[in-house]
Amino acid sequence: MREVAILGIGQTSIDEHWDKSLREIAGEAALAALQDAGINSVDGVFVGNMMSGSANRQQQLGAFVADWIGVRYADAMHVESACSSGAAAFRSALMAVASGFMDIALAVGVEKMTDSPGAEITAELATAADADWEAGQGLSFVAINALIMRRYMYEYGWEHHHFAPFSINAHNNAVSNPNARLRSPLTEKDYLKAAMITPPINLMDASPVGDGAAAAVLVPVELLNRFPPRPIIKVLGAGAATDTMAVHSRKIPLWLSAAEKSVKQAYSQAGIGPEQIDVFELHDAFTIMAALSLEACGFAEKGKGPQLALDGEIRPDGRIPIATRGGLKARGHPVGATGMYQIVEVVQQLRGEAGQTQVPDARIGMTQNIGGSGSNIITHIFGRMN
Amino acid sequence: MREVAILGIGQTSIDEHWDKSLREIAGEAALAALQDAGINSVDGVFVGNMMSGSANRQQQLGAFVADWIGVRYADAMHVESACSSGAAAFRSALMAVASGFMDIALAVGVEKMTDSPGAEITAELATAADADWEAGQGLSFVAINALIMRRYMYEYGWEHHHFAPFSINAHNNAVSNPNARLRSPLTEKDYLKAAMITPPINLMDASPVGDGAAAAVLVPVELLNRFPPRPIIKVLGAGAATDTMAVHSRKIPLWLSAAEKSVKQAYSQAGIGPEQIDVFELHDAFTIMAALSLEACGFAEKGKGPQLALDGEIRPDGRIPIATRGGLKARGHPVGATGMYQIVEVVQQLRGEAGQTQVPDARIGMTQNIGGSGSNIITHIFGRMN
Repeated sequence: MREVAILGIGQTSIDEHWDKSLREIAGEAALAALQDAGINSVDGVFVGNMMSGSANRQQQLGAFVADWIGVRYADAMHVESACSSGAAAFRSALMAVASGFMDIALAVGVEKMTDSPGAEITAELATAADADWEAGQGLSFVAINALIMRRYMYEYGWEHHHFAPFSINAHNNAVSNPNARLRSPLTEKDYLKAAMITPPINLMDASPVGDGAAAAVLVPVELLNRFPPRPIIKVLGAGAATDTMAVHSRKIPLWLSAAEKSVKQAYSQAGIGPEQIDVFELHDAFTIMAALSLEACGFAEKGKGPQLALDGEIRPDGRIPIATRGGLKARGHPVGATGMYQIVEVVQQLRGEAGQTQVPDARIGMTQNIGGSGSNIITHIFGRMN
Repeated sequence: MREVAILGIGQTSIDEHWDKSLREIAGEAALAALQDAGINSVDGVFVGNMMSGSANRQQQLGAFVADWIGVRYADAMHVESACSSGAAAFRSALMAVASGFMDIALAVGVEKMTDSPGAEITAELATAADADWEAGQGLSFVAINALIMRRYMYEYGWEHHHFAPFSINAHNNAVSNPNARLRSPLTEKDYLKAAMITPPINLMDASPVGDGAAAAVLVPVELLNRFPPRPIIKVLGAGAATDTMAVHSRKIPLWLSAAEKSVKQAYSQAGIGPEQIDVFELHDAFTIMAALSLEACGFAEKGKGPQLALDGEIRPDGRIPIATRGGLKARGHPVGATGMYQIVEVVQQLRGEAGQTQVPDARIGMTQNIGGSGSNIITHIFGRMN
């Protein structure tokens, strides 16, 4: 298996892009990544997207993106695992390059959601849950997370306001990110007075959807000498695991087993543990998910996730900075693109290009992208080598 | 890169499975493949499917299938490239095993279409075309193929009845396939009197949709000694290429450039040419596509595809047997599952398990799965090694 490095990254802003089509958004991020890499063609294109078939009436985004950016005849496919589609596309590209199937691969995550009416988007997001046993019973995706959060608060004795620091950190970090969806700072007072969606989840516990795309170019480390010198960001570890679709089927619904399994694989491949991670872009689709992810990855004990946030340890200058460019909460959550935004942002941190929320001396970064309510979790660890 | 072999195969019948859900159909094929392989777990699950997000309101079929068949915590993802989603899932599994990311992978193709009303299915199939420049202009998927077929007839001087042997061969071969959708033999008279859909494509030029699933288990050749002796079917070559989404963007709309590129990769990897292929499961979604595929893969000169069929060379005892278990035309075309049916059927041929349509002494078989109107084409070559 060949070692793989990131040669280039690109992203669009996350917004209601009424003036741009699906192909234009995907193309903007893809071409930015090619330009950053200093290349004009690739062997393969892997596109992560969740809902273009229904929201945009467009399938086979692999060929679609390859066509639009002009890499004629490239190997290309669309990869989907609900909200972790972005990381799934990156993982597929990684396998393709590591195996020697191809030398240069482009991974793109894209989602164009604001063309669909709100009620339809809620229904489409619910397709990430179990259609027979969750969505079909009237549970929206927010409702599933609300059930988890309520039980977590009951089980471990937390109150709603204890989750405020997750949202505040994300919002404050997004202020200096030009691509973020919500660039307004947040106070605890704002958090507490936000409109309730599904108790206990209020508007400031939940991440906003949006239109956006992010992309990265992968090459084998052994071919890096073909390209001009640059910061070398290597994939040190990769892991993926699934769990039951329906949350009620899990023995411990408050523990992300798939996160634990996937991060263990990634730690093992990288030969490191949580103590070596300098920055962690996790999947804070809801504040409760940030807490559960920190626990499953070894940064907090079971039921103690919110304490890390309350102690300020998740801030850029804390023990384990998360959501450093705004996270899903404030950078935004264009579903199938999110996993690629996380990877692009960690690469920015390791390159030292993260601006005002730069984590000092960041050498090792991790991303974790969650599909469904913890049913498909993909982790990557990256290291700066020079 | 490790060499990869097929350890087990499974399939469901293709039908209107009103009494079975999406998960039941996928599970039936997947568990049959595990049983055939003599195993009860796998490291990874790759699911090819085109339209479950809209037709079944269910996404992330990777975790969905892994959950249902009980391989808890497996790495899993859903792969989509319209009608070539099945082969794309197999290709992803192949990369995962070849690279060493995992040892045992399950590739499943599944589609459950008859739950959706007919008009909706036509609209969903059109998402394989370009939403802006084809489907959005009112072109259905049949209409696109009709334009290609009409131009082909004009350009090369063929008449409609010259395409009859493709349909007749497929139907006659399906009679002995217990899993085929249409098991009635066909005469030229039947073909000629079939109802017109979109001139020149009539009902007997087009393949029927349906519900079905097919699956295969992949393992590295180096680990085959862990399992009891069996016919060893190895992946000798694999290729994939894309073309423009819209047919009108191609310089030569009557030539499947992506088929040519992908088959060249596969031939090159296998170290063989078309003359070594004993059996070829191609993508006869429409009779015109069978002709174009034969030409692009080197079995007929440009514009001469129908002659092979007229000469009887595509029959099980001919030079290049195609659609040996019925093809898309008569076995059926459950869109995202089709590519896996092709692979399962070629493995049956190489094992000598193809019953009345067994190709004598078949040692090397090829599959070619086409997404869109030639925009994403994936080819695999398999060899019997013992």
